[in-house]
Amino acid sequence: MRMYDIIHKKRNNEELTNEEIEYMINHYVSGEIPDYQMSAMLMAIYFNGMNDREISTMTNVMAQSGDMVDLSSIDGIKVDKHSTGGVGDKTTLIIAPIVAYYGVKVAKMSGRGLGHTGGTVDKMEAIPGLKTNFSQEEFFDIVNKTGISVIGQSGNLAPADKKLYALRDVTATVESIPLIAASIMSKKLAAGSDCILLDVKTGSGAFMKTLDDSISLAEKMVAIGENCGKKTVALITDMDIPLGNNIGNSLEIKEVVDTLNGKGPKDLTEICIKLAGNMLYLANKGSIEDCEKMAKDAIENGYAINKLIEMVEAQGGDIDYIKNPDKFEKSKYSLDIILEDNIDGYIGSMNTEGLGIASTMLGAGRETKDDDIDFSAGIILNKKVGDKVKTGDVLCTLYTNDEKRLENAKNKVKSSISITKDMPKKLPLIFARVEKNNIEKF
Amino acid sequence: MRMYDIIHKKRNNEELTNEEIEYMINHYVSGEIPDYQMSAMLMAIYFNGMNDREISTMTNVMAQSGDMVDLSSIDGIKVDKHSTGGVGDKTTLIIAPIVAYYGVKVAKMSGRGLGHTGGTVDKMEAIPGLKTNFSQEEFFDIVNKTGISVIGQSGNLAPADKKLYALRDVTATVESIPLIAASIMSKKLAAGSDCILLDVKTGSGAFMKTLDDSISLAEKMVAIGENCGKKTVALITDMDIPLGNNIGNSLEIKEVVDTLNGKGPKDLTEICIKLAGNMLYLANKGSIEDCEKMAKDAIENGYAINKLIEMVEAQGGDIDYIKNPDKFEKSKYSLDIILEDNIDGYIGSMNTEGLGIASTMLGAGRETKDDDIDFSAGIILNKKVGDKVKTGDVLCTLYTNDEKRLENAKNKVKSSISITKDMPKKLPLIFARVEKNNIEKF
Repeated sequence: MRMYDIIHKKRNNEELTNEEIEYMINHYVSGEIPDYQMSAMLMAIYFNGMNDREISTMTNVMAQSGDMVDLSSIDGIKVDKHSTGGVGDKTTLIIAPIVAYYGVKVAKMSGRGLGHTGGTVDKMEAIPGLKTNFSQEEFFDIVNKTGISVIGQSGNLAPADKKLYALRDVTATVESIPLIAASIMSKKLAAGSDCILLDVKTGSGAFMKTLDDSISLAEKMVAIGENCGKKTVALITDMDIPLGNNIGNSLEIKEVVDTLNGKGPKDLTEICIKLAGNMLYLANKGSIEDCEKMAKDAIENGYAINKLIEMVEAQGGDIDYIKNPDKFEKSKYSLDIILEDNIDGYIGSMNTEGLGIASTMLGAGRETKDDDIDFSAGIILNKKVGDKVKTGDVLCTLYTNDEKRLENAKNKVKSSISITKDMPKKLPLIFARVEKNNIEKF
Repeated sequence: MRMYDIIHKKRNNEELTNEEIEYMINHYVSGEIPDYQMSAMLMAIYFNGMNDREISTMTNVMAQSGDMVDLSSIDGIKVDKHSTGGVGDKTTLIIAPIVAYYGVKVAKMSGRGLGHTGGTVDKMEAIPGLKTNFSQEEFFDIVNKTGISVIGQSGNLAPADKKLYALRDVTATVESIPLIAASIMSKKLAAGSDCILLDVKTGSGAFMKTLDDSISLAEKMVAIGENCGKKTVALITDMDIPLGNNIGNSLEIKEVVDTLNGKGPKDLTEICIKLAGNMLYLANKGSIEDCEKMAKDAIENGYAINKLIEMVEAQGGDIDYIKNPDKFEKSKYSLDIILEDNIDGYIGSMNTEGLGIASTMLGAGRETKDDDIDFSAGIILNKKVGDKVKTGDVLCTLYTNDEKRLENAKNKVKSSISITKDMPKKLPLIFARVEKNNIEKF
């Protein structure tokens, strides 16, 4: 078998055999196939795509290129959840306690933030004392005891994906739906859960800017999951507005606690009930409607907040911060962004990516991998898309411990919010739901 | 400027600026842009193509990456000729003497054969004593004195093309019309002539298998030539049958001499008159019709054969072999290929590439760069496509100095000739002529 011939086939839009895909990935990881052949192949895939069988095979080979986490020592059905990344996305910390309450196991390895999107592990570390690095045994013990643990990515998961991603990143081949799907799903397959819930973000703050692309990506990922024996569902959710009102690590933990106490923002609460409902559905807890009802009950009756407290305690965190979020240290500096223009109207749109960048500018995120995080930095939105505003209104408040950061962040925030005369069209929070052989649009 | 952004643009089918193309080629040649980025770019060009301005700029930058031959010390109009390569293609050695007789200067650097196609320089070296490596001064002197010299490629012509070609060869990006056009024309621009005649072969023995592709390639090359200030014409000629009857180095020299003596095969003679006519036309010697008439006259009156003798003498070759081609040493072994099947019919088709490979198997060509050539080896075709044949007829004769080579070559030749009951459709020798803003199909 020769890589040349495999490139030639894909270039001519012929299907690759499973053997060819295995050869290509394994010999690339081992260094026998050079980068210059793989990058030509990636560009050919960018143009000619891959069918579901090709992508599933590729994803599986990528997953098997490193450690395959074996969760069999954890009892019950394990459900994983993945979000394609957004701004203010703290859903994992809300829905995992909900489903764990009902006996669904969440043994989740999560990422850190980079660029304009935050990472769940960073948010958790805003809770004093909380650890996110455990040995596999400790990790499994916590899940068996509390039903839930969220830790940082460890071990050698899907090294093929790491090597391929680094190459795609410098050869303009990132934006390929089959390659994105294989990249995400290879790590999910390696992580070992039985079922996978995918939250595919769409809109200005997301990687996929259009609904059609988001649905295509969701379809591909669901096909991969199902072909590899994992029950998989994807929700396409809005990322044209940040989720909830708070952006930034401890600010988001406060909002998580509020939401689990039934006092969260309406959009965040609604989406978390949908996501948690679908996770329960994947774990065979009933119909979608029943499962959503269960999710709602877990919030209303305080079951879920107690589960979060259990997990925080098990991971060494100070639970007083969850019981009383006002304990979180406030940032030294804050600045209200006030509508100064002499116009009344509505928030017409928010550039979610812009707000994520502003939050990073304030210290809440990393611009490079080695940056430190200011846990109390971030933004609280006072008005969101569709809200009526008039001159003098506080649109949002910026928080930081480094006064110098305020000026640039302020400009970024101002340029990320636009005011319109007319009330903007209201978009649904969830655009579509993709299951095997079933796409439902809302 | 970043290569990433340039790949991204071409991937998105946006036009590249001249500055981007210069940056990309120059930094690739200098090693600052790695192979893995260039191969992704080449694949993007394969899919999205390049417009005439982009290709012309790229070709020019590639030409200027090395020596630019300055032919200004040669008087008169210099016309170059390029064939995309074929089997039995000895036209250069027939048409160059014809046009040189009329004062058109041919200062040609030619290639050696590799694989199934022969090279003009190898054919010339079949003439005892003839040298093909000269200093630039000697080369110019010969052209000034005799009007014609054909030597091997020397110096550092278009090193960008060498580096790019090596990468295309291993990344399945050879078969891209803009890249082929840029590759050929970069060397022609660097070679310094005023006008360029392109002989684009089409059919089973050629690189371009379809007429449409051949015309597209011709159009691109003519556009490049004209954009770079070189008057350029392309003829699309048939390579579904070998040109003439003889394949192999000294066998082809004999056929060259026969043709210049007016006793050549009809197809070869006709195509040479067309090619020479177009070279004279490029050098402003008159209308196409007048120029073809001049080419015919040069053969009929013996002017051209005398010009060939002058050139052979100037390059140190023994002119007795031209005056009396029977002097060429015959190969030790020969084998008639006889029609054994009990069918009468016609030669329906010939796999020209197959016959070229068979000739190489007999010793007439190189399988690897370092192979020695058996100058007397090759094939003489006794019957060609459209000829009536019956059982017992000699279809062709194989020649070699290595008896062991006969068996494999015989099988290859047999599988390359097919016999049909019905007379095959006669194809034209020349399918089309492409000039600036003018495509003529025949």
